[in-house]
Amino acid sequence: LSELRRDPITGRTVIIAPERLRPMSPPVVAIGGDACPFCEGQEAIAGREILAWYTPEHRVHGRGWRVRVVPNRLPALRVESHYGDPRDSLFHTLGGLGAHEVIIESPDHHASWSTMKPEDLWLTLWAWRERMRDLRRDIRLKSFLVVKNVGAAAGATLDHPHSQLVALPFVPQHLEEEMASARAAHLNTGACAFCTVIEREVGAETRVVTKDAQTIAFTPFASRVPFETWVMSRAHSAAFDEQTDETLGLVAERLSDTMRRLDVALGTPPHTVLLHTAPVGETDRASYHWHLEIIPRLTAESGLAWDGGIHINPVAPEDAARYLRDSLRS
Amino acid sequence: LSELRRDPITGRTVIIAPERLRPMSPPVVAIGGDACPFCEGQEAIAGREILAWYTPEHRVHGRGWRVRVVPNRLPALRVESHYGDPRDSLFHTLGGLGAHEVIIESPDHHASWSTMKPEDLWLTLWAWRERMRDLRRDIRLKSFLVVKNVGAAAGATLDHPHSQLVALPFVPQHLEEEMASARAAHLNTGACAFCTVIEREVGAETRVVTKDAQTIAFTPFASRVPFETWVMSRAHSAAFDEQTDETLGLVAERLSDTMRRLDVALGTPPHTVLLHTAPVGETDRASYHWHLEIIPRLTAESGLAWDGGIHINPVAPEDAARYLRDSLRS
Repeated sequence: LSELRRDPITGRTVIIAPERLRPMSPPVVAIGGDACPFCEGQEAIAGREILAWYTPEHRVHGRGWRVRVVPNRLPALRVESHYGDPRDSLFHTLGGLGAHEVIIESPDHHASWSTMKPEDLWLTLWAWRERMRDLRRDIRLKSFLVVKNVGAAAGATLDHPHSQLVALPFVPQHLEEEMASARAAHLNTGACAFCTVIEREVGAETRVVTKDAQTIAFTPFASRVPFETWVMSRAHSAAFDEQTDETLGLVAERLSDTMRRLDVALGTPPHTVLLHTAPVGETDRASYHWHLEIIPRLTAESGLAWDGGIHINPVAPEDAARYLRDSLRS
Repeated sequence: LSELRRDPITGRTVIIAPERLRPMSPPVVAIGGDACPFCEGQEAIAGREILAWYTPEHRVHGRGWRVRVVPNRLPALRVESHYGDPRDSLFHTLGGLGAHEVIIESPDHHASWSTMKPEDLWLTLWAWRERMRDLRRDIRLKSFLVVKNVGAAAGATLDHPHSQLVALPFVPQHLEEEMASARAAHLNTGACAFCTVIEREVGAETRVVTKDAQTIAFTPFASRVPFETWVMSRAHSAAFDEQTDETLGLVAERLSDTMRRLDVALGTPPHTVLLHTAPVGETDRASYHWHLEIIPRLTAESGLAWDGGIHINPVAPEDAARYLRDSLRS
């Protein structure tokens, strides 16, 4: 069974999950149908349905779903685990409590966020939100990570469109640090740092990819990799699971357009999408602002940047934004 | 010219270096000789010699070196730059001041740390130390990063054995955090956290790969990836550039043996080696302990772990250590 281990020096928590051991560099399943556990017809293989959206008239024997959530086949964390008490103050081990779910984003093996209709992409955001609303009732769970890896270079082992939701019994260090920094900025200026950045970006326009009154896609000032792009809802809000259907619809449209631009500009790049959202029960609602980070995975990361080191980015975000603006006639 | 940009929300600093733009996924030069700028005979192409170790009897027309330091051909930072003052409190930009050097570790294109004699590997550690001792006289430089990337999956673009030294005009966030955490542990217990960990590891033996009275190689308790291995000098010391020739010799032997074990166990894996050393002028000498982290790059990193997120490691460090212990008859 997996364990949560805290590094005795840095305090960072790592999940040691021997159950997830599988052959190194597993092939990405490039063809759909019977070979892919996430395709329609393979529901029994994909696993127990935790949540799904069906088109009623097409619902026959488990088919007819448009988005479907199942447990990860090799879960890093389980809700059946005990978190327990650490017995050793230096080598701090806790049980692998949490949840690790897979969101199968479409029955179509070849769908992608850039080719899906925005209303189909909306279903994925809906599934993320509904699962968070359900999981947060388990008071042992403190934070959520959502990740979408596309392409082998981004660590994906299956190419059927999917994302992963991880619920953790603690707040991970990188989120705690981001929140602490945002809190300090808020104390300093009285404003949400994310809102201030959006306002400045909208004013300057140089790093804006596209925007309207509700949402924005932009390349951040200190982009870590070429074409890093953030998609945000402009209205201040700390937590993703508090968003309305309507807001998710607007974000889905912005995401869909952004992914199309990235595909045109970079030739369907391998990429990671990360959702950053406030921890469960966070009482400071004023300083944090949920957002989506799209990270193209164009080159192997140098050891210099590995695990939060120094990123050397050869493409200025102003150039990337211009390129993305020009990549589609809008 | 390159810029240092501070992220307005997280405070992390990124180097935006348009000069380093080159074709994506450049090929690793797999053959030596004229095709490789780092091979003997190509000194004019490799660049101005900053430092080298010559065997006097073999020194002819720039040849006969055993280790050689040159400026990075596409430097992310330059000592000729100005650090300057930020004009914008939100979007904080500074000049690309610093140094970015390449240590060519051997004239032999096919050498590696696992096949080099320990006394040849020592020359690399010697070159790192000598360059740091020289660069630290520039009071604008505050910290050093040393990285060795081996294999395309680790971000290497040349396969001739080499490492990179980066001198920064600030202390990067990940080093500051590691130091803050070690400082807190020291305040708490009165001991260096690294020394305490070594003592416990030596006592337990389960995560020790090899050790003697002066040095140790072990797989850390919260290993982030399979077969992560740290190599340390056991004597407490904060800064790499204060090490004696003799200590570097002992560390070179431990490193050479460890790399042989990793090569046998994992089949010459792509990997990154990182040197962590205290910033220049750090006055707290008691809480930090310099060390080397060897990070095998066996699989593409999931977006979950990207840039300091949550690592899910399917190989327990106890299993990795046992495997490495058994991989060579010692």
